[in-house]
Amino acid sequence: MTRRLSLGMVGGGQGAFIGAVHRLAARMDDHYELLAAALSADPANARASALALGLDPARAYEDYAKMAQAEAARPDGIEVVAITTPNHLHAPVARAFLEAGIHVICDKPLALTLAEGEELARLARQQRRLFALTHTYSGYPMVRHARELVAAGELGELRYVQVEYLQDWLANPIPPGQNKQADWRADPARAGRAGCLGDIGTHAYQLAAFITGQLPSELAAELHSFVPGRLVDDHLQVWLRYPNGMRGSLNASQVASGEENRLQIRLYGDKASLIFRQEEPNALWLTPIGGASQRLTRGRVESAAARHASRVPAGHPEGYLEAFAQLYTDAALQIHALAAGLAPPPESLALTTVEDGVAGMRFIEASLASHAAGRWLKIS
Amino acid sequence: MTRRLSLGMVGGGQGAFIGAVHRLAARMDDHYELLAAALSADPANARASALALGLDPARAYEDYAKMAQAEAARPDGIEVVAITTPNHLHAPVARAFLEAGIHVICDKPLALTLAEGEELARLARQQRRLFALTHTYSGYPMVRHARELVAAGELGELRYVQVEYLQDWLANPIPPGQNKQADWRADPARAGRAGCLGDIGTHAYQLAAFITGQLPSELAAELHSFVPGRLVDDHLQVWLRYPNGMRGSLNASQVASGEENRLQIRLYGDKASLIFRQEEPNALWLTPIGGASQRLTRGRVESAAARHASRVPAGHPEGYLEAFAQLYTDAALQIHALAAGLAPPPESLALTTVEDGVAGMRFIEASLASHAAGRWLKIS
Amino acid sequence: MTRRLSLGMVGGGQGAFIGAVHRLAARMDDHYELLAAALSADPANARASALALGLDPARAYEDYAKMAQAEAARPDGIEVVAITTPNHLHAPVARAFLEAGIHVICDKPLALTLAEGEELARLARQQRRLFALTHTYSGYPMVRHARELVAAGELGELRYVQVEYLQDWLANPIPPGQNKQADWRADPARAGRAGCLGDIGTHAYQLAAFITGQLPSELAAELHSFVPGRLVDDHLQVWLRYPNGMRGSLNASQVASGEENRLQIRLYGDKASLIFRQEEPNALWLTPIGGASQRLTRGRVESAAARHASRVPAGHPEGYLEAFAQLYTDAALQIHALAAGLAPPPESLALTTVEDGVAGMRFIEASLASHAAGRWLKIS
Amino acid sequence: MTRRLSLGMVGGGQGAFIGAVHRLAARMDDHYELLAAALSADPANARASALALGLDPARAYEDYAKMAQAEAARPDGIEVVAITTPNHLHAPVARAFLEAGIHVICDKPLALTLAEGEELARLARQQRRLFALTHTYSGYPMVRHARELVAAGELGELRYVQVEYLQDWLANPIPPGQNKQADWRADPARAGRAGCLGDIGTHAYQLAAFITGQLPSELAAELHSFVPGRLVDDHLQVWLRYPNGMRGSLNASQVASGEENRLQIRLYGDKASLIFRQEEPNALWLTPIGGASQRLTRGRVESAAARHASRVPAGHPEGYLEAFAQLYTDAALQIHALAAGLAPPPESLALTTVEDGVAGMRFIEASLASHAAGRWLKIS
Repeated sequence: MTRRLSLGMVGGGQGAFIGAVHRLAARMDDHYELLAAALSADPANARASALALGLDPARAYEDYAKMAQAEAARPDGIEVVAITTPNHLHAPVARAFLEAGIHVICDKPLALTLAEGEELARLARQQRRLFALTHTYSGYPMVRHARELVAAGELGELRYVQVEYLQDWLANPIPPGQNKQADWRADPARAGRAGCLGDIGTHAYQLAAFITGQLPSELAAELHSFVPGRLVDDHLQVWLRYPNGMRGSLNASQVASGEENRLQIRLYGDKASLIFRQEEPNALWLTPIGGASQRLTRGRVESAAARHASRVPAGHPEGYLEAFAQLYTDAALQIHALAAGLAPPPESLALTTVEDGVAGMRFIEASLASHAAGRWLKIS
Repeated sequence: MTRRLSLGMVGGGQGAFIGAVHRLAARMDDHYELLAAALSADPANARASALALGLDPARAYEDYAKMAQAEAARPDGIEVVAITTPNHLHAPVARAFLEAGIHVICDKPLALTLAEGEELARLARQQRRLFALTHTYSGYPMVRHARELVAAGELGELRYVQVEYLQDWLANPIPPGQNKQADWRADPARAGRAGCLGDIGTHAYQLAAFITGQLPSELAAELHSFVPGRLVDDHLQVWLRYPNGMRGSLNASQVASGEENRLQIRLYGDKASLIFRQEEPNALWLTPIGGASQRLTRGRVESAAARHASRVPAGHPEGYLEAFAQLYTDAALQIHALAAGLAPPPESLALTTVEDGVAGMRFIEASLASHAAGRWLKIS
Repeated sequence: MTRRLSLGMVGGGQGAFIGAVHRLAARMDDHYELLAAALSADPANARASALALGLDPARAYEDYAKMAQAEAARPDGIEVVAITTPNHLHAPVARAFLEAGIHVICDKPLALTLAEGEELARLARQQRRLFALTHTYSGYPMVRHARELVAAGELGELRYVQVEYLQDWLANPIPPGQNKQADWRADPARAGRAGCLGDIGTHAYQLAAFITGQLPSELAAELHSFVPGRLVDDHLQVWLRYPNGMRGSLNASQVASGEENRLQIRLYGDKASLIFRQEEPNALWLTPIGGASQRLTRGRVESAAARHASRVPAGHPEGYLEAFAQLYTDAALQIHALAAGLAPPPESLALTTVEDGVAGMRFIEASLASHAAGRWLKIS
Repeated sequence: MTRRLSLGMVGGGQGAFIGAVHRLAARMDDHYELLAAALSADPANARASALALGLDPARAYEDYAKMAQAEAARPDGIEVVAITTPNHLHAPVARAFLEAGIHVICDKPLALTLAEGEELARLARQQRRLFALTHTYSGYPMVRHARELVAAGELGELRYVQVEYLQDWLANPIPPGQNKQADWRADPARAGRAGCLGDIGTHAYQLAAFITGQLPSELAAELHSFVPGRLVDDHLQVWLRYPNGMRGSLNASQVASGEENRLQIRLYGDKASLIFRQEEPNALWLTPIGGASQRLTRGRVESAAARHASRVPAGHPEGYLEAFAQLYTDAALQIHALAAGLAPPPESLALTTVEDGVAGMRFIEASLASHAAGRWLKIS
């Protein structure tokens, strides 16, 4: 094993959900050691949360800007920071750490606006720092394998991609103050103008881009808000046209009653189709035209990409946390390689980056514009 | 048991697929006796096919128009005719028999144009004859039960309906002369301007209308033809807006590699969702917001509608042919009631009619127009 | 099409379930015409039921023995009789018709005792008459295909077969007089000493024999009766040893709460495994050692056996009634061939016969004896 | 968060599979810090493996006995040891650490013989030390929930339990030296007289005991070895009788071609049934007699037991590693409580212990004896 990387965290204090997931993911494959944090915008909570995690009090910061400066100044300062704040802080926090020369692992979405996102991409390139965006679902071994199958031409020329992400957790009105998640995600000031579109529509978009290796050039979008009083969309459908003639359809909803977390992608080529369902992540369905469906399983497929992202043998299910951990592992592999001046291991290149985040911002902006215009628009 | 109805058939000679299915469906529940036919546009085939079925040679017609006249003139003439010709003949054949005072059971689509369809509807009303359209899928017990659940408010207010119908049998180019089905279905002169749209898109549309009890008021459609040289669409996506605010999405494809006959509908209400998949027709999935999915099965649900359309107990799968037979059975029940001057049994009213066919024609025309215009259109 | 065979029926009067299923099955593929019947042991019901079916009153018999004699004496007498009475009458009725030179299609089980069964087998051979036993489940196309795959060595040498048949319809005590089915099936005088064992255990046994082509030489059985007051077994498990070293396990239960009609067989060879579930009869799962599962579907598998037993294309589910009809169709093909002095079409040889029924009786007797002895026994 | 426990490990050096899984499981919920180890019977490998993990060289032991003594003597010595050696060392290693007053987390099976197992149980009681056995599958939230449902009477009185554990990784002969796992597991000297029986049969047995809360009093077993040259069983079936009249059936196989890791349990009560499949661990199927199946999912069930064992919301699959981690977490909770003289949190009491291991040894010995005797035997 290589040396553990020293990790800092912004956001993720007591009561926050995704911060704890980031910590678990960072810990799973043992490539990181958490050493510094600014865990909350509330100084008291920031401090208490850090102490509860056993951090050195000197590195329990009350403010992310101070943390970036102080850590950059320490000889043993953190090498990488995990950003797990509400959406509106992603960009300023990331900027602060990039400027301090610290690698960034950031929760999605990248930013509130395309302009912010593009600036971060520029900054990351300029500083030569890793900027990983945690699009968890591309950490699944069978998603990695799907990408390999498509690239290897197993489906033939792709004709149609259908991706959907359906949940029901916002199907009923949630009174303010009752669910911290729901509160900030429904607030345009903290989550952006896109509701369901930014929250899970971007995951669906990224998954399609990741597996197909292609970005659409035009889209038509229809957004809707079903729950009275909601300020952002909670349901959407988007059609996609790709430069090579492929067509796509993307649906996302947070009011799809009964659905837990149905992220599903179906790809139809002129030879075969491929289906992945996030809720059954250890399998892929591959079906040739006119033929029998094959259920490919993690641990049984021959693929360096899937093996790289697996921990246990076939029949022992891996899940969401392992997919999340894979992003941290790939980030560690790339950071070590960067530090050593080496090329990163090819399998680690499946990591989603700031560029993917910029593509996601373009998708959001084009969707909002198309919805407003009521027609197809080019994606900038 | 009531007396068997005397049945005639137009189309469905040797080598035709759907005619044999109609005969089996008519036979299954024993409400009909096939006594006369004009089974092919080719006189020799018409005659040979009729004799092979054991029909009286005097009633083995070479021409549907003569058949309508001759049967109407016989004291023991047929009471009902089944029309199983290629699409372009549906309307003229139906007209001939309606004018002769004979009830009609017609394969879908109703006609090639909306105008033809509306004329048939008028004629059927004027002649007081039954005009049943064989939208097979609404013959499934669990589709009938789904309609009951929606009507009873089990899903709450419907918000979103997603229906899709995916096949792959036209995924590759089929050289002319190799597949009779493929030939006429790909020929605009015999099948109409709509390809996949008319062939299976209308089934999806009808299924949504049947279960929800609602018709959309606006649509946006995008058609596509993936296989080079194909003259009609083989793939399509349509968005639907309903007067009450419900949204819909409809996809149909005959180039969806690997798919056999995936007709699937998902309905999301503000209380629960409901899913039906034609390829697993003995079950329905009902899931409340935030709750556990229930797998409702034919034979175990308490519903007069489902019981009426069932033959064997739970756990003994029924299928496509039973659904088809149900349409014939419902038609028989309605014809007997009409003859007796009685109201038909309420369960038989699930039969799809010429009005459903007219709605289907409106859907086709609006979809073609919206695709050409590249925008949302009102459905006439 | 060949001429329809003239059919008689014993049992299956108004209120009986399986008789109506036999009639539907006989009708489906149009190889039979029902012309004579003794539908009930109660003369008035026998007569009324026959008239309701539209039979000639002269051929509406009140007694099966008279029917056999009278029909044998008519120049246009029935060629084949369907026996759908309670179990204890199968043997005497079959004997009467065989002796009259009439082919027999008999509901299972063959008889109440092995001796009776063996006598029927002798009689059928001596009279050169067809004796088909309606083990419905071997009428499924995918069961036929499974048999082909095994015979072709696709699984390698079979090591282990696991078959189970689980229902819950007798999970609670059923007060006498409430359910006609339950009444006679729970009465040793009418159904035999074996309860669940004879009713569904024999189906499981036959399915394993049909697909593997092998009969076990030894068994160990444990029967149980869970519901207080029940006079026959309602649950059982049996282990099987085959001459070639294969092992088997058979479970059947009518108190398996929640199960509808789970007849399932799993076959493990030294190359691959195969799974069939009656409740999803259009599919088979084939999985090589260490490899991906393939879902083979009716209509897509290349097999004369499966095609022969299919009516509609892939993706259009067929079910229990079609499987039942297949037995009637195969019987018709064999009877026509017998009459013409020709070999029956090879695909029709999948029909289950009196010999299968005798094997079933041996299984019942050995299971009862093993249970009583508490140890492994040879199957006679 | 409470203080991390100091952890030692015996076994699990480079190239060992299960040791790495133990370390990941110990790390996941952050209750442990690995500080000392004797990772291999080979001193060089032991040392190299420890250094690769970043351990203090002074605590990288070459011998487990020395490690137990040395750690017991240190003021900062380990509080708990994880034993991940081949089976034959479980008992001597556990004895050494228990005698040194150190808590034990041990891979299963507990020991090679019942006598050894009973001695360990006595020793653990006498030393008042925790002895956790890593029967991973009872760490799944839905297994915990299943236990709650049974205990709450949701199934009614249990009648029948069917548990099976099927794999195919030993379906072909594996030449010695090719697969380290296969080597020692197939060697009676290192794995014990029971092959498949000890390796996975005991998991199935434990799962049934865990969920039902009952142990059988009698069994009949049939073992088999299908692969030529194999010295231990690779396939088995066992029938179980319980004191309260419940019946059981247990199957395990390592030659079940195509199966990955099918551990499945089905419980039939006089009200409802419950099904759990390890390969789909986020769901449970609950079906009342005659009713609709409910698919209960992790994250949506209301149960303190399931919530305690969960990390992420419904729809985000958890898997095998999380189940494993749960055992470590429960052990930590119990050790902290023991140290504080407090009762452990009730949810942590789902941890499997040395007593479960003793029950497993009794099952193995009774199965071997019953197989040899060819008849039912009481379980000692």
